[in-house]
Amino acid sequence: MSADRTEGERLVELAKRRGYFFGASGAYGGASGFYTFGPQGAALKSNVEDAWRERFTVQEGNFEIEAPTIMPEPVFEASGHLDGFDDMLVECPECGTSHRADHLIEDNTDIEDAESLPISEVEDLIADHDLQCPNCGGRLSGEPVEDFNLMFETNIGPGSSTPGYLRPETAQGIFVEFPRIKEYARNSLPFGATQIGRAYRNEISPRKSIVRTREFTQAELEQFVDPERDEPDLADVADVEVTLYPASEQADEDGSYVETTVGEAVEDGIVGDAWIGYFLGIAQEWYQRVGVDMDRFRFRQHLAGERAHYAADCWDAESEVDGDWIEIAGFAYRGDYDLSKHGEHSDDDFTIFRQFDEPKTVEKSVVDPDMSVLGPEFGGDAADVQSALEELADRDPSAFEGETVRVTAGGDTYEVDVDVANFRVEEQTVSGEHITPHVIEPSFGVDRTVYTILAHAYHEDEVDGETRSYLSLSPTVAPTDVGVFPLVSNVEELTARAGDLVDDLRESGFSVVYDDSGSIGRRYRRQDEVGTPFCVTVDRDGLEGDGPDSVTVRERDTARQVRIPVESLVTELRAVTSGDRSFDALVETYDLVAPGTDA
Amino acid sequence: MSADRTEGERLVELAKRRGYFFGASGAYGGASGFYTFGPQGAALKSNVEDAWRERFTVQEGNFEIEAPTIMPEPVFEASGHLDGFDDMLVECPECGTSHRADHLIEDNTDIEDAESLPISEVEDLIADHDLQCPNCGGRLSGEPVEDFNLMFETNIGPGSSTPGYLRPETAQGIFVEFPRIKEYARNSLPFGATQIGRAYRNEISPRKSIVRTREFTQAELEQFVDPERDEPDLADVADVEVTLYPASEQADEDGSYVETTVGEAVEDGIVGDAWIGYFLGIAQEWYQRVGVDMDRFRFRQHLAGERAHYAADCWDAESEVDGDWIEIAGFAYRGDYDLSKHGEHSDDDFTIFRQFDEPKTVEKSVVDPDMSVLGPEFGGDAADVQSALEELADRDPSAFEGETVRVTAGGDTYEVDVDVANFRVEEQTVSGEHITPHVIEPSFGVDRTVYTILAHAYHEDEVDGETRSYLSLSPTVAPTDVGVFPLVSNVEELTARAGDLVDDLRESGFSVVYDDSGSIGRRYRRQDEVGTPFCVTVDRDGLEGDGPDSVTVRERDTARQVRIPVESLVTELRAVTSGDRSFDALVETYDLVAPGTDA
Repeated sequence: MSADRTEGERLVELAKRRGYFFGASGAYGGASGFYTFGPQGAALKSNVEDAWRERFTVQEGNFEIEAPTIMPEPVFEASGHLDGFDDMLVECPECGTSHRADHLIEDNTDIEDAESLPISEVEDLIADHDLQCPNCGGRLSGEPVEDFNLMFETNIGPGSSTPGYLRPETAQGIFVEFPRIKEYARNSLPFGATQIGRAYRNEISPRKSIVRTREFTQAELEQFVDPERDEPDLADVADVEVTLYPASEQADEDGSYVETTVGEAVEDGIVGDAWIGYFLGIAQEWYQRVGVDMDRFRFRQHLAGERAHYAADCWDAESEVDGDWIEIAGFAYRGDYDLSKHGEHSDDDFTIFRQFDEPKTVEKSVVDPDMSVLGPEFGGDAADVQSALEELADRDPSAFEGETVRVTAGGDTYEVDVDVANFRVEEQTVSGEHITPHVIEPSFGVDRTVYTILAHAYHEDEVDGETRSYLSLSPTVAPTDVGVFPLVSNVEELTARAGDLVDDLRESGFSVVYDDSGSIGRRYRRQDEVGTPFCVTVDRDGLEGDGPDSVTVRERDTARQVRIPVESLVTELRAVTSGDRSFDALVETYDLVAPGTDA
Repeated sequence: MSADRTEGERLVELAKRRGYFFGASGAYGGASGFYTFGPQGAALKSNVEDAWRERFTVQEGNFEIEAPTIMPEPVFEASGHLDGFDDMLVECPECGTSHRADHLIEDNTDIEDAESLPISEVEDLIADHDLQCPNCGGRLSGEPVEDFNLMFETNIGPGSSTPGYLRPETAQGIFVEFPRIKEYARNSLPFGATQIGRAYRNEISPRKSIVRTREFTQAELEQFVDPERDEPDLADVADVEVTLYPASEQADEDGSYVETTVGEAVEDGIVGDAWIGYFLGIAQEWYQRVGVDMDRFRFRQHLAGERAHYAADCWDAESEVDGDWIEIAGFAYRGDYDLSKHGEHSDDDFTIFRQFDEPKTVEKSVVDPDMSVLGPEFGGDAADVQSALEELADRDPSAFEGETVRVTAGGDTYEVDVDVANFRVEEQTVSGEHITPHVIEPSFGVDRTVYTILAHAYHEDEVDGETRSYLSLSPTVAPTDVGVFPLVSNVEELTARAGDLVDDLRESGFSVVYDDSGSIGRRYRRQDEVGTPFCVTVDRDGLEGDGPDSVTVRERDTARQVRIPVESLVTELRAVTSGDRSFDALVETYDLVAPGTDA
């Protein structure tokens, strides 16, 4: 039934039908690149965000902030997004549709990384291959290719004098507030700051469902370090096994993956920086925990052309769906680029004071101008002359070697006797220096993670002679932990007891759905398809026997059922949903219910 | 020390210093109306959102969705925001600053609700009172007052052909997806849909810190009901005591609050709709739970002039800060306004099929045209003529009383013999009808709730002879549950044991901060001021006695300390943070530590 659909198409259909996600504003024909998460999707996405927060904020002891999504123009002048955050656009002369020129080339030629080519070359390639408009077939050859800035622009307040932009990444909200955040970290490196939130890119042609949208959710961590002193706790993840696809292997025709551990990868220099290695290790374990299929997952190093000029090393986490590799996270060593830029463009202090191990004695050229001479001579300008002399002594002591010294202040030049300046070289004790921290940035795409989890969780098998589809979602992220059903809906004894169980389970912290509509088999299928890990059914057998009351508990992936005393239900469900106990262990402890009762 | 500062000023200072919130993009001079939540604030806000989700989504069994913040223009044409979502703007002719004209009038006259006045009257009032620019003192008399649309506008995709707007409320994301959400609810009323997320209003003059910002977070619930059939479970909240300020009392010079219960308020007709009453009751309990001071809280009914024309009844939850009442939530009976509008403007189905209790027999006028006559006579237009006849029979049976009947199809008029049309009146069995659900909308401002909680939690007292300030935050929302300290930081035995406790507590689900910097008194003050409910200190006394190892546990609000065995720590902390046990009970069970050790 599904053989003629791709994995992605099947997923998109199920996602809409079961309330995971669907194109937004469908009543008005939709808005390309915008998706709404339905009840199941919103819960799954929220669980993924919570799992990320738990691992990358709480466990790491980092600082999470929540900054606005609209930021004023100077922020993006400093960050470089105003000038450089562009995609290449070509417009069809026939139908007026806009296309990403680099994608057209990649889709129609053997060239894989057209984004890094200069515009003139892209125009030539369109002409050489006589590329056509995917919408109407019009000829694009000869059409101009232009840079299109991907930021959504708006105006803050009345009028157009204060442009604002929707942030293209959550990161800038952290960088721009660094002067505040460092205070909460008591001015002491290393520390990390995180943010989970919306980001916006006005994509020319959004595609692939929730993989490339115009509004999406990022979870970003900015790790601020002293590059000379701070080391990660690499031992924590040294043994984590990873599949790496280094740049050198990608360049090599016979190149292959490197299966190794994080510790060895850093030691061998495959991963150039220990912090990057540390975060790859944490990410590997985290992705596994939330349900990414690690056989369809790799870390791919950026090729030299893909990297920003300031990034020393950069790796992507990639997942495979439909035979394509999707970037789901990036891990970049960004040096001091971001904080330096904001330091230059603003008046705030984006440095940290690094204490020396011991105070150092340094020679320092200073002046101590005789103001009783400068005052009468320069009047109101005397203080400016004094400052200029101090600055000059620090910058160019040799200027004080003659009998007089010239300084410029307020556009005028002043000549001062060296004696009056009182120039001398002093020994000073310095306790430290100001440094601009380096940044390592693990940046996660939440929507793409959700997409991967759903794609990798989708399975079909046969139960009771019928094909069923199910999502093998991990209890960590599944929208619902437990489904609770009365076997039939018209017996008060069963529905009341099932209702009580729902209350008990909710009180114990489980996310529960109650369902008494349709046949029991149909209710199981429904929960299978939304990925509910366990279903509890209240039946007459369980309430009418001699022993304690019991219910059946069904495991989604195997459709096996065991009969468990009601009094043990919360404990056992907690054990299997937390992973402390396997369903196999339950099967050994309790009676397996005969197959066939599923229908 | 704080006598000369208002409650709001004190709060803003503490919020910035301790990492609750601060003006965003301060490095670039700030962006008016945009705030960043620091580590404490982001955690508090996230806890408030979780508490809301738990009560208004999970416990109510509602559907939570997550829709985009950018929506296309047709959505806001339908909702009325494009035309009507305006504030009155007046610009100073001297300095060019824009002001809200209605606020100027409210600030400088006795008029309390200038927003509802027509523009011409507002212009007259400015002239009559000779109002001046608050920025430069320029005269505003005679300046035009204009409607300014509060939506942030942007463009979707390249060019300006597809305008998009940042949603001014999360509600539209729910309304516009109603045709999808009703399927997840299996087309059966009543059901509720919720959304927590950012909303945007391009305020002319943002003010009062995070109370009136340009980007903020809402938590909204749209309760969809069949107005003739669905009733809330009012009994659940009938006994909840509320302070009401009905419109009639506001209009009365001697008007006063009505102290009553939800059940009585609905019965007495003070609250006109049972659903509104139900949500007032839930909200009252919820606000209390998250730490709003209920002595500084009321429900105020909208005056007739404040209400939207379609809203049958509307109440605000208001909290008092600095002597002002702040709207922190609204509860509106919106009728079928929202869904009807989207039904009219789009092609989608915003109705629900309401099954009759028993199928009804109705008389229906129908035609059954003889196509063997129509076909040859009208050729390719025959089918259109057939449709037109069917439509006419339904709409105006009297048209079939003559010998021929005229219909219009595709702009042309056709004359058909009544015999050929085969007109007759039939009895039909109808099982139900399509209705447009009514909407009750509880809409919460998350930022304002956070602001209120912090303002109401702020206290000052004297401990060990010194003034201290502390936030009496409820454990439900406090950013951190427990602070853990070694009494001194240079004793390995103490720091190691404290570190172990941190791990144990985190594993048990507590949010924990470790601190070994500065004197123990200073560390307590720090946690007092961020509102951490309990602090655990590891000291030598606790580890070196004969009995089991023990630690001290200090309650924030009273600064009392008890000595508790380490083995009971997790259990006792869980009991006091969940509210199952009071600190008084701990004091009765364990030894109270002598006062004075706090310093």
